[in-house]
Amino acid sequence: MLGVSHRDDNQSLRAIVGNTTAMTAARNGNTNPWPDGTILGKLVWKDSRHPLWQPALVPGELSHIEFMVKDSKKYANTGGWGFARWVGMELKPLNNDGGKPCFECQKAAAETDFVFTRPAPLP
Amino acid sequence: MLGVSHRDDNQSLRAIVGNTTAMTAARNGNTNPWPDGTILGKLVWKDSRHPLWQPALVPGELSHIEFMVKDSKKYANTGGWGFARWVGMELKPLNNDGGKPCFECQKAAAETDFVFTRPAPLP
Repeated sequence: MLGVSHRDDNQSLRAIVGNTTAMTAARNGNTNPWPDGTILGKLVWKDSRHPLWQPALVPGELSHIEFMVKDSKKYANTGGWGFARWVGMELKPLNNDGGKPCFECQKAAAETDFVFTRPAPLP
Repeated sequence: MLGVSHRDDNQSLRAIVGNTTAMTAARNGNTNPWPDGTILGKLVWKDSRHPLWQPALVPGELSHIEFMVKDSKKYANTGGWGFARWVGMELKPLNNDGGKPCFECQKAAAETDFVFTRPAPLP
């Protein structure tokens, strides 16, 4: 588990997870660039209010699950990252045109190897 | 990873994790009551704004890490749950008076075995 987030702009909650390569890199502060073999996963739910605690936003309907896979040679045209997204509980694959539209948005995070997630502070 | 949450009332982001007993119970819908042996962990960070994407709230300073441990005999006086909390990056143990003040708040979730977290929808 690398972190969590809430987006005001599209009312969603996110959990960000990583494979062992990602977690080791995060623990060692070795994330700029992330090493080849890194897999980052993002689980995205629409906001819901907790029925017993209204000020709490909790996961509602699953929106989508998406992955970024680092291979600096294979994905050289998209910042070294491959992208995939599956939509809804049926996990319908999104046709992402080789990750080009994904990469366009990730360019805003160019200064952190095209990854928005910064590992959450942990002891 | 059982879920995530954001609290408007105290501006915090949370990740909720569980041990194997907890994850198996969640996957099987066997969480009311949660089985003995369940351990639930909550990691709590203060809100921060992502510097590259302002509408995103992301983990700032670590607030605390807390656990609930289910043992219906050992903790019979507090709903079958033992409680612990460690504060800040230094993980300073909180004196919780045998979990009584923790349990007082959890009573609001009596209908779900004194646990607010409902496992996030996943395929």
